[in-house]
Amino acid sequence: MQRYFINNEWIKNNKIYITGDDYHHIRNVMRMRINQEALFCDEDEQVYLASLEEYLSHEAVFIIKEKVNHQPELIYEVTIAHGLVRRDKQEEVIRRITELGAKRYIPVIMERSIIKVRDKEDHKRERMLKIIKEASEQSHRTKMMELSNIVSFNELLNISTQYDLLMFAYEESGRNGNSTFKKALEEFVGQKILVLVGPEGGFNPQEVEVLLQHNFKSIGLGPRILRTETAPLYIMSAISYELELGEQNDS
Amino acid sequence: MQRYFINNEWIKNNKIYITGDDYHHIRNVMRMRINQEALFCDEDEQVYLASLEEYLSHEAVFIIKEKVNHQPELIYEVTIAHGLVRRDKQEEVIRRITELGAKRYIPVIMERSIIKVRDKEDHKRERMLKIIKEASEQSHRTKMMELSNIVSFNELLNISTQYDLLMFAYEESGRNGNSTFKKALEEFVGQKILVLVGPEGGFNPQEVEVLLQHNFKSIGLGPRILRTETAPLYIMSAISYELELGEQNDS
Repeated sequence: MQRYFINNEWIKNNKIYITGDDYHHIRNVMRMRINQEALFCDEDEQVYLASLEEYLSHEAVFIIKEKVNHQPELIYEVTIAHGLVRRDKQEEVIRRITELGAKRYIPVIMERSIIKVRDKEDHKRERMLKIIKEASEQSHRTKMMELSNIVSFNELLNISTQYDLLMFAYEESGRNGNSTFKKALEEFVGQKILVLVGPEGGFNPQEVEVLLQHNFKSIGLGPRILRTETAPLYIMSAISYELELGEQNDS
Repeated sequence: MQRYFINNEWIKNNKIYITGDDYHHIRNVMRMRINQEALFCDEDEQVYLASLEEYLSHEAVFIIKEKVNHQPELIYEVTIAHGLVRRDKQEEVIRRITELGAKRYIPVIMERSIIKVRDKEDHKRERMLKIIKEASEQSHRTKMMELSNIVSFNELLNISTQYDLLMFAYEESGRNGNSTFKKALEEFVGQKILVLVGPEGGFNPQEVEVLLQHNFKSIGLGPRILRTETAPLYIMSAISYELELGEQNDS
C-alpha cells in the first residue's frame, strides 16, 4: 500500500487534503480509485489509514478510517492457504505465522498431499487453537489468527474470489529469478491477500493451470528451494518487511 | 546493493562502461567508492556482480567479478549471530536459515542466555553439521552454511569489525515502527552483513549500549514480538526478498 508523508495542517475534520506532487502521484501515477486506501504519516509520526473519497480539481480528499500507529496487527488481512501436510509441520507453520501476523490459515487438500483426512479432526483442531492462542499472546497480538476447516482445492478457488490479491508460491518461478512477489506487494492497494503454498510434493501441472486461470500470480521466493513449512514464514516475513517497515514515499 | 539495467554493448572485455543517468546516479547520488560492488542486468537478463574500477570524466568503469544469474547462493554473506538458546531452538534456526541462504551461524554467550555451556559440545556440533548438510542439499545450495564455535559477547565485537553492515534485532525498535532495517538494506552497497538476535530474555541495557558504540544499528522487525527462534527467519527472508527478488533500478 502506498504511504505519504503529510503536514499536520492537511488534516481537517477527519479528512486529509492532498495537493501538489502527491496529488499528482495519487491521481496520475497510482491512478487510485474512489475507496482505495493509502497510509498517511503526519509530522508526529502518527500513521492514518484513509480511503479516497473524491478528487477535486487540484486536490485528493481522503477520509480517515483509523490510526494505525503502535498497534500490533498487520493492517492487511493475509491468509495462508497450505496444501495439507503432516500435523507436526502444520503446527509449526501455524505457530510461526500467528507470530508473524497472519489473519487466517486454510489447509487445502491437494493432489500431491500425502496426508489423508481422517477422523478425530476435532481433537487436532483443539490443539491447534491452543497453539494459536499461545502464539498470539506471546507476540502481543490483539486478534487471534483464524483457523479454517480443511477445504478442497475447488472450495479454495471459490473462497479466493473474496481477495484483492491472489498468489501461489511456485518453485519454478523462483528458479527463474521471478520478482512478481515484490512487485505485487509494492503496487498493492487492496486489503486482503491470499497466498497458497503447496504440500511437500508441490503443485501438479493441472493445479498450476487452474490457479493461473483464476487470477493467481505465480511467485518465486528466491533461488533456493524452500520446504513447505518454511515458505509460509518467508511470505509472512516479506509482507511485514515490505508493508510494515517501509516509510518511504515512492513518488 | 544497487542494481542497474544495461545494454549488452556496454560490456567489453569483462568490463562494464556506464554513462548518462546511471553514471550520474553512481557517482553523485550513491557516491560509490572504488571497489564497491553493484549488480548489472543486461538485455538477456544475465546479471553480473561487478566492482567499480575507476571514474573517467563521463563514465564509470566496472570490472565484472561474476555472473550471478541462476545460482542458488545469496550474493551477500549474511551471518546470523544468536544469543545462546536451548538446543532444539538452535537446531530449528540452523535448519531454516540454511535453507534461507545464510553464510554463517555464530552462537553467542549473552547476559540473559539461560543456557550454560557444558561439555560434549563436540557431539552437539556433529549433529548440527548434519542438519546443515541436509538442509543445504534439500534447498539446492552449492555451499554449506558455516557453523561457528560458541563465542563470548566480546569475541563477537571483535569479529564484527570484518563486516560491512552490523545490526541487532531490538524489540523496542519494533514497537516504535522503526524502518532502519529496510533503509539499511535498500542502501546497502557492501558484501558482508551481520545481524545479532538476542536470547529468550533479549538484550540487557548494557549490551545495547555497547552494540550501539560498536556501530550496530538497532532494527525493528515489525510491531509484533517475535520469538528468538523466529527473528532469524524473518531477517533471512527479508534479506532475500529485498536483495534477491528486486529488479528495479531506483535511480
